[in-house]
Amino acid sequence: MECNYCRGLKSRNYGNFIFQTDYWIIFLAPNQSNIGTCVVALKRHYGNLAGIKQEEWVDFGEIVQKLEFALKKAFNATMFNWESLMNVDYLQNLPDPHVHWHFIPRYCHSIEFDSLIFEDPDFGYMKHRPIREIPDEIREKIIDKIKKNF
Amino acid sequence: MECNYCRGLKSRNYGNFIFQTDYWIIFLAPNQSNIGTCVVALKRHYGNLAGIKQEEWVDFGEIVQKLEFALKKAFNATMFNWESLMNVDYLQNLPDPHVHWHFIPRYCHSIEFDSLIFEDPDFGYMKHRPIREIPDEIREKIIDKIKKNF
Repeated sequence: MECNYCRGLKSRNYGNFIFQTDYWIIFLAPNQSNIGTCVVALKRHYGNLAGIKQEEWVDFGEIVQKLEFALKKAFNATMFNWESLMNVDYLQNLPDPHVHWHFIPRYCHSIEFDSLIFEDPDFGYMKHRPIREIPDEIREKIIDKIKKNF
Repeated sequence: MECNYCRGLKSRNYGNFIFQTDYWIIFLAPNQSNIGTCVVALKRHYGNLAGIKQEEWVDFGEIVQKLEFALKKAFNATMFNWESLMNVDYLQNLPDPHVHWHFIPRYCHSIEFDSLIFEDPDFGYMKHRPIREIPDEIREKIIDKIKKNF
């Protein structure tokens, strides 16, 4: 089941719906080079982190807690990177950014999941890795596992 | 004038003190490849974004607002990247991370300040740039200009 927000946000290629709260929606990111990488997008259309309201920050803080916990339990993630960039929107003539966060679990070890091996060769450093696409059925299994631990 | 927090946090090479709130301290980052790049560090020693308290998130949200506003006024920054990474701490045998944010103003134009030229050749993309060190007296002038617009 997907709400209007999800459909609108999906058109931005944020990935597959996992969960939502009052103010944010969590997607499994298109790029799974690091297994469990997610996008956390603001539900209302707003383009600037400076305009996030108190209740949205508090809600976001709870998501950080739950998502980090879930990824530790699900895939034994070592630690986590959080980024709000929105750079690509500014390549357009009329930027129309939408506030979202990149949540990147980092691993000091490799992970085998459903016959695929996931590694984090740049652990300890920040290098944006090329997109790794994985089969839809494995994406669904990753989502299930995150949800069960959320 | 610097407090104990600042001295302790400075030893982590976060840069020069600009401002503090109840829960966070703002430094001018060592790397000024993008002029006005700052580090926002949690005052208490804590290593995990998942443990940030409600009041700390709300306070952080106010800093985001003030800092983005100040950088727009001071240097006409176009937009902003925020990152919480803490990768480097995990290169040690016994990681001892301290929650902090990288605040990177981005510019679709070059900036001249005190006879130095600052450019953002990767605008629209995220590439961590090599460290650009600038003279202490110019760092102080940047801090003054940010403070005046804070």
